Amino acid sequence: MKALKIDHIGVAVKSAEEASKIFKSVLGLQTEEEILEDRKLKVVMVKIGESRVELLEDLDENGTISKFIEKRGEGLHHMALEVDDVYKSVEKLKAEGYRILSDPAPGAGGTIVAFVHPKDVHGVLLELVERRKNDE
Amino acid sequence: MKALKIDHIGVAVKSAEEASKIFKSVLGLQTEEEILEDRKLKVVMVKIGESRVELLEDLDENGTISKFIEKRGEGLHHMALEVDDVYKSVEKLKAEGYRILSDPAPGAGGTIVAFVHPKDVHGVLLELVERRKNDE
Repeated sequence: MKALKIDHIGVAVKSAEEASKIFKSVLGLQTEEEILEDRKLKVVMVKIGESRVELLEDLDENGTISKFIEKRGEGLHHMALEVDDVYKSVEKLKAEGYRILSDPAPGAGGTIVAFVHPKDVHGVLLELVERRKNDE
Repeated sequence: MKALKIDHIGVAVKSAEEASKIFKSVLGLQTEEEILEDRKLKVVMVKIGESRVELLEDLDENGTISKFIEKRGEGLHHMALEVDDVYKSVEKLKAEGYRILSDPAPGAGGTIVAFVHPKDVHGVLLELVERRKNDE
């Protein structure tokens, strides 16, 4: 059971398009916009090396990202690491006393994702992502 | 002029050793502790894929990391991207109206680093890192 890479960094922003400018026009990176209907999010994915920066804009003013911005302002929201087995990772975390915010469940693009409670990761909202082999 | 990868994610923590446990014992990652005397920081570097997570513990109770924690609590502190040319990147950023918090200057391990003002990057403290070819 091992973490393989930084899958993505999630950034809470008011306007994903506006926030993508520095990455696109100054840093020369490719971006792709996606609307996640079920999570009521507009996401601009910035591809960088083996990872992504995800610019997260809430389409719901009472959504998680809106609430985060209201409380703390725009900025770094979560860190997602790719693991080879998200079920085993969560099992091991629980055994060692870490609290799981959400158990493994299907995420975007055929992934399985889980979140660890930020109180147990020194304030970091940690997402674990498993990518099924046929999905990339 | 291009950003190449996520160089590292900096996390502000009270105890770098304590914070490294989840990465080391649960996620199976290699860590290395370093004391940066001039910046009065203890850093645990967690190697993951082509990137690192840097757990930053202040050795000075009036230092930047201490102040960050006092104000916002422990958590994600900054995002560092590797660029092929930090001077050209900063020049371009300035030309487009971005404020630079600190101009390119020598960082750890033969790097040249600059910081962009978080107010111009939607709350993200953005570090740009250039690695000189002979240093890795």
